[in-house]
Amino acid sequence: MNEYRYQAVEQRIMDMIDNGTLGLGDRLPSLRKLGRDMGVSISTATQAYTELERKGVVEARPRSGYFVRHTKRRFPAPQAEPRPAQPPRPVTRAGLIRTVLEYVGREDAIGLGIIEPHPSLLPSRELGRLLARHSRDHATTALSYEVIQGNPELRRQIAHRSLEAGISARHEDILVTNGAMEALYIALRCITRPGDNVLVQSPAYFCFLQLLENMGLRAIEVESTPDKGLNPALVADAVAKYDVKACIFVPNFANPDGSLTPDEAKREIVRLLEYMDIPLIEDDVSSDIHFDPKRPGTYKQYDEKGLVMLCSSFSKTVAPGWRIGWMLPGRYLNKAREIKATTNVCSATPTQAAMASFLAEGRLEKQLRTIRTAIERTMDVMQLELNRSFPEGTRVTHPKGGSVLWVTLPGSVDCVDFFFEAREHGVGIAPGGIFTTRERFTDCIRLSCCGVWSEELSKGIATLGDLARRMAR
Amino acid sequence: MNEYRYQAVEQRIMDMIDNGTLGLGDRLPSLRKLGRDMGVSISTATQAYTELERKGVVEARPRSGYFVRHTKRRFPAPQAEPRPAQPPRPVTRAGLIRTVLEYVGREDAIGLGIIEPHPSLLPSRELGRLLARHSRDHATTALSYEVIQGNPELRRQIAHRSLEAGISARHEDILVTNGAMEALYIALRCITRPGDNVLVQSPAYFCFLQLLENMGLRAIEVESTPDKGLNPALVADAVAKYDVKACIFVPNFANPDGSLTPDEAKREIVRLLEYMDIPLIEDDVSSDIHFDPKRPGTYKQYDEKGLVMLCSSFSKTVAPGWRIGWMLPGRYLNKAREIKATTNVCSATPTQAAMASFLAEGRLEKQLRTIRTAIERTMDVMQLELNRSFPEGTRVTHPKGGSVLWVTLPGSVDCVDFFFEAREHGVGIAPGGIFTTRERFTDCIRLSCCGVWSEELSKGIATLGDLARRMAR
Repeated sequence: MNEYRYQAVEQRIMDMIDNGTLGLGDRLPSLRKLGRDMGVSISTATQAYTELERKGVVEARPRSGYFVRHTKRRFPAPQAEPRPAQPPRPVTRAGLIRTVLEYVGREDAIGLGIIEPHPSLLPSRELGRLLARHSRDHATTALSYEVIQGNPELRRQIAHRSLEAGISARHEDILVTNGAMEALYIALRCITRPGDNVLVQSPAYFCFLQLLENMGLRAIEVESTPDKGLNPALVADAVAKYDVKACIFVPNFANPDGSLTPDEAKREIVRLLEYMDIPLIEDDVSSDIHFDPKRPGTYKQYDEKGLVMLCSSFSKTVAPGWRIGWMLPGRYLNKAREIKATTNVCSATPTQAAMASFLAEGRLEKQLRTIRTAIERTMDVMQLELNRSFPEGTRVTHPKGGSVLWVTLPGSVDCVDFFFEAREHGVGIAPGGIFTTRERFTDCIRLSCCGVWSEELSKGIATLGDLARRMAR
Repeated sequence: MNEYRYQAVEQRIMDMIDNGTLGLGDRLPSLRKLGRDMGVSISTATQAYTELERKGVVEARPRSGYFVRHTKRRFPAPQAEPRPAQPPRPVTRAGLIRTVLEYVGREDAIGLGIIEPHPSLLPSRELGRLLARHSRDHATTALSYEVIQGNPELRRQIAHRSLEAGISARHEDILVTNGAMEALYIALRCITRPGDNVLVQSPAYFCFLQLLENMGLRAIEVESTPDKGLNPALVADAVAKYDVKACIFVPNFANPDGSLTPDEAKREIVRLLEYMDIPLIEDDVSSDIHFDPKRPGTYKQYDEKGLVMLCSSFSKTVAPGWRIGWMLPGRYLNKAREIKATTNVCSATPTQAAMASFLAEGRLEKQLRTIRTAIERTMDVMQLELNRSFPEGTRVTHPKGGSVLWVTLPGSVDCVDFFFEAREHGVGIAPGGIFTTRERFTDCIRLSCCGVWSEELSKGIATLGDLARRMAR
């Protein structure tokens, strides 16, 4: 999704490089010609070229114009051969996950390991004002309990927005939670007991694995591929082979591999699970960060039996620290409400109210555009820097949204060794090993993208590139 | 704890009435004489008499002075004969509890059923200012995740305060939670699995029973008495007879019967449980609302093996809707932190920070005094109104703190019928039946005290009194 005209121009040049129309060292069309061709002003064209130069794709040669500096602006995407699901595994990743989180969360670590939008991209002053306003204008209720299900206006706003995801929900169908994590936890509590099997797509967001381990649940991993997402046939195979009590799937821009499951496949999977009467927990937190103009669909939109429990939050797009998420628990609404009540009664009053105003005043769309543009553009830069610093044979995903890149290292480098080496050098990354219960993704790392590029991040990528070369066998 | 001198005077007169020095119709000492005797000004004495008149204890007769109107200003306390604990029970109270909560939570119900300090007693403007200040002064971090364990300054303040409860804790020992309810939930998650037996004191706060039911745990009830609290011998008997995996006890001003377990008994119980290696979850939310000058002790202060998990919050005293609680998980800290992380990652950033400032600026003590004084005085009034409206044979607890009265009705009235009748008449109360898993307390009701008296509440008590008479067999 291109915010400005110059980005369209930039895109055009990038495409010409990708498809080989422009080769290494080739001269770019003159600003005047390009302006004419694309019907943009010279200044717009100039802005595009300057941007490309900043990114290192092209270089300006005095009095002769702009020339292609990279024939390939990013590594090819990994090719995975999906295999059928393996038997259930008790989850035992907590130790490694904790070690990773402890480090990547540190102030002094170069932040390629943690997913959190850069503070400068978040509407902190605005939300602060709304908080202040609420406490001022609602002095008598500002400290009172909110209803268990959550601030009604907030739920109305969320219901309204879910139309964009193809879901027609009423505020009565929504339960406000302390972030998507609590929604997932409540969803699992609704439908599982310790020892049950839960089907997750693999690679799986390590928080899912932590949650399963913590609740004494067993994970069955069904492979998704970065380019095609989940394959309904593999899901069918898994639920036929094993006693699956619940599924946790990510509809779009899955963490870590960025995979998007096509809507057609989503529909097929929902039909299948309905037939088997297996509930599906859908983690939809990344879908709002789509780079293409249109928001991709959800599993929930195909739900006809109330078996899909959609979970989401504002943590990746508006206010991580406010801990505001929600769920559409479908047929499990009453149970979910009771679990919420007995877990922490209800979510906090002032933040819910302020977020409701933020949405009611129509501020979300602008905020989402800011986040999308910033992350898409920094990911572009990150692709280039990877291309510049990492060894041949490296593969990197090309996600259409979300905020992570999934990198496969050549030369059978062990990702856990790589994590510790990177830590030695002050760079935080997430090793592939924490995204599975099995011995998989041992040559993969996840790099996250906070939406603001910096010298420090460039240094970080360069450092990782050197390590990747040095450690390759 | 008497805030003002006139209250001391008031107290003196009340005592004279209680111990019979002053009988029905007797004339009170003249203001001048009383002033001299007690060394207070006439205006102070006048204020005391006016207050007593407002409460209906005495009446002013023109040109002849003040006269005693009630010889008994409150009903006697119930006498319970503690019996040994009965076998474990699966908990199945959810239905009735939900029905009760749905009604007593309603705006239009006369509020004798729900425990929440009156908004006018809460520092809403002050906390609002602190919230606004935090968002203004910490724009870059105001929306970021807080550390899992909770805002460090808030934990330092809580650690500092816990000295008053006889506990020497460091901020590293504390986990911030979304209210005491989440602390209890995390505590139970740390040490139980579905099907386990949990020992609770009876009558038990219905939230404990909801939580147990919801987590598939079984309750064993050990009787506490309003006047003596928990009897160590009965606890010993219960843990000897049954396989108890955890206990949930309330050290002081238990909800609903207001019972306080003497510190000596607390120590004995902790020793016993340490010997049996059974963890004790302590719900300390009411201890700060003590009417006597000194705060009563905790179980935690006797904990030498890290087996006591103290849970508390600011919900009953400062800001119910902010959902800020904490726990001292003892030896279960790491497990507790992981459960917190996988339940909702961490608690919200702005409210924690603002509460930390509230404490750091030393505002809590004044707030606690406000709450204590207001609740003690309204409870006094409530005792009088009960005395005026309820039939002979009624018994009412005389708690030294907390915010509930536990009323035993004469004439074997069924409390559940009573709840529905009261609802018909627009009055919200909590029937005894929701405070047990057994057929007990069928003639009891719990009345809560928000700290601000009103005509409406008087009307409510009168209505309940009529019902009690009409329904008595």
